[in-house]
Amino acid sequence: MARIVQKFGGTSVGDIERIKRVALRIKEWRDQGNELVIVVSARAGVTNELIAKAKAITPHPDDREMDMLLAIGEQETIALTAMALHAIGVPAVSRTGQQAGIVTDFFHTKAKIKRFDSSPLNADLAAGKVVIVAGFQGVNEEGETTTLGRGGSDLTAIAVAHVVKADICQIYTDVDGVYTADPRAVPNASKIQEISYDEMLELASSGSKVMQSRSVEFAHKYGVDFEVRSSFNNNPGTIVKAETKSMEDVVVRGVAVDKDQAKIFISEIPDKPGTAAKVFRALADAAIIVDMIVQNMGRDGVANLTFTVPKTETHKAQTLVAKVLAEVGGGKVEVFENTAKLSIVGVGMKTHSGVAATLFQSLAAQGINIDLISTSEIKISVTVDAARVDDAQRAVHTSFGLDKA
Amino acid sequence: MARIVQKFGGTSVGDIERIKRVALRIKEWRDQGNELVIVVSARAGVTNELIAKAKAITPHPDDREMDMLLAIGEQETIALTAMALHAIGVPAVSRTGQQAGIVTDFFHTKAKIKRFDSSPLNADLAAGKVVIVAGFQGVNEEGETTTLGRGGSDLTAIAVAHVVKADICQIYTDVDGVYTADPRAVPNASKIQEISYDEMLELASSGSKVMQSRSVEFAHKYGVDFEVRSSFNNNPGTIVKAETKSMEDVVVRGVAVDKDQAKIFISEIPDKPGTAAKVFRALADAAIIVDMIVQNMGRDGVANLTFTVPKTETHKAQTLVAKVLAEVGGGKVEVFENTAKLSIVGVGMKTHSGVAATLFQSLAAQGINIDLISTSEIKISVTVDAARVDDAQRAVHTSFGLDKA
Repeated sequence: MARIVQKFGGTSVGDIERIKRVALRIKEWRDQGNELVIVVSARAGVTNELIAKAKAITPHPDDREMDMLLAIGEQETIALTAMALHAIGVPAVSRTGQQAGIVTDFFHTKAKIKRFDSSPLNADLAAGKVVIVAGFQGVNEEGETTTLGRGGSDLTAIAVAHVVKADICQIYTDVDGVYTADPRAVPNASKIQEISYDEMLELASSGSKVMQSRSVEFAHKYGVDFEVRSSFNNNPGTIVKAETKSMEDVVVRGVAVDKDQAKIFISEIPDKPGTAAKVFRALADAAIIVDMIVQNMGRDGVANLTFTVPKTETHKAQTLVAKVLAEVGGGKVEVFENTAKLSIVGVGMKTHSGVAATLFQSLAAQGINIDLISTSEIKISVTVDAARVDDAQRAVHTSFGLDKA
Repeated sequence: MARIVQKFGGTSVGDIERIKRVALRIKEWRDQGNELVIVVSARAGVTNELIAKAKAITPHPDDREMDMLLAIGEQETIALTAMALHAIGVPAVSRTGQQAGIVTDFFHTKAKIKRFDSSPLNADLAAGKVVIVAGFQGVNEEGETTTLGRGGSDLTAIAVAHVVKADICQIYTDVDGVYTADPRAVPNASKIQEISYDEMLELASSGSKVMQSRSVEFAHKYGVDFEVRSSFNNNPGTIVKAETKSMEDVVVRGVAVDKDQAKIFISEIPDKPGTAAKVFRALADAAIIVDMIVQNMGRDGVANLTFTVPKTETHKAQTLVAKVLAEVGGGKVEVFENTAKLSIVGVGMKTHSGVAATLFQSLAAQGINIDLISTSEIKISVTVDAARVDDAQRAVHTSFGLDKA
């Protein structure tokens, strides 16, 4: 017997039939003697429908009211899931974020969990019930409904697993687990059995869409192991956990590609202290997330600075940079959108040398030019021509011995 | 400047365009310097859609989970209405039943308001905001979402008007007000300007669909005057208030017809104490609402007993009665569905004589046979052949001088 947290995303509970199927899966686990807390998302599409309604009323709906509106998506799913469990004889009770004990800060639409009172969930479990918790939502100390932002349901699941001291936390998704590369681009990609939090984080921030970084960070912070697995079959998925010694035997755990970044190139900047600071302060104030930043050595009193931003922010970023340049008196800005980022990730890099050399050789052999390079302790990222990035990732995947046997 | 509570039903907020129109109406009232609390229902159809989803999962969904599910209908409307007000520059904030301070008992799907903390709404009003309150819902002392049952949004509005000490409470509906009879059946029916709580209650319980009895009872109990008016025009509606002396000048305020009752006739019951009690106990235990009850004098040791129940309950009622009769050893049960109830209502009956005679003459003149008769201080009800009830109400409407000039 184990205490298990299971999270089902919007696709898994997308309609009545799927909710019934999820209920049957839950029953199977319970019949094996397990205690269960289930975290569910809104049915696929519901959140977007609600957003569309809000936008039909006003282009910039108030954040507090957005949270009030969006929270109903999960509230529908928890009620229907509890009913589906009752219908097959499983005692179950639904809980909104508030009822589950999740207290957040005041930042509507992207609230952080401040406190999580374990007593409601523990009481339900002690009463022999399967608890169905609404993902993505909580309540602030004024009693106002808040939502946790993108990936919020995963975050709820990890937090629940932490406070109820779950033995297992399973994140059910529409993929089988975490792969060494995107199988649609790299047919030889294989499922990773175990991955460290850091590797998972680097993959997430490098374009692998399985989970949002903050859920992984949260799990890392509290030491919650979790498994990413498919809601459509019973295959074991990928376990995400603290780094172990044996993990270092693998140099590169996976390859990730991000095609949603644009490159902003600033040339001939007056090379004096504070210019870069001004640029990035302006971007930060506009809440534009900057990914890679590369600056070469200043020469003849001018420097070149390149960074990447999400493509959706290109225009805004360019305008802001132009404004800063006008202030500092010099430099020009150019935008390149046909760029893509390729990253290799692995804790083994810490103890193996020659990883960068292998990466660069592999790309050179394909005639693919490397543009920006950026490294961290367990990751190397490069940007290349977007048109060649899929060739690039297949070659790199093979070079690091990731192709399936 | 007045403090006004306005309640908009599901049709008035049925889609985005209507919500925008309601927002414009609210703005007009506010621009005149009024303080406003708005109570809204779920968009028309939403509650039924949610019920259909629940029924698709299980024929008998759990009451607690039904409340969890149904509450989202109003939560959607309050968020969208608040957004629509923001969009036209009106400061507004939405509040769920819980956030508005409505604490109920534990009877899911038909909870009663136990306490209503006025401080959240008063604080919002003091901050200059229009408050949008979700009708139909509250929270019990365990923090579980409850709903108030049919007509619950009207009840919320009356309760809000009471706790915020509103000067005016307006119930916006898809009818213009309360009429002397159903205008579809009686073309000469006219709108009533003022009606007493008791008259309104008797009309409600006699088939007039404008409002549920409990909202009127609640208003009566707390002395909340309210106006029933149309959300589609600016005409004054009908004011419902405490009885005044001048109201007695009108003998009959209105005529109501109820076609949804079936008649259950029990004959040859052993005429001994307790038989009727057993019958009505069995019906009450099955939550079947009995309307008229008529028993004639016992003779030769047997009695006849007739009562009416909602047509939807006919089969259940008949089965239960048959069971009781088997126990007491005698009597037979028959069901008549082609029956309809006609009622005349007016506080003037208390001081005028000959009202019953006028009613019976009026029906006799049309050759309409009267079946059951039942009276209260301000009402006389009769059942007649369903096929003749519209003729009956037109004739009675004329006889009591209710036809419009």
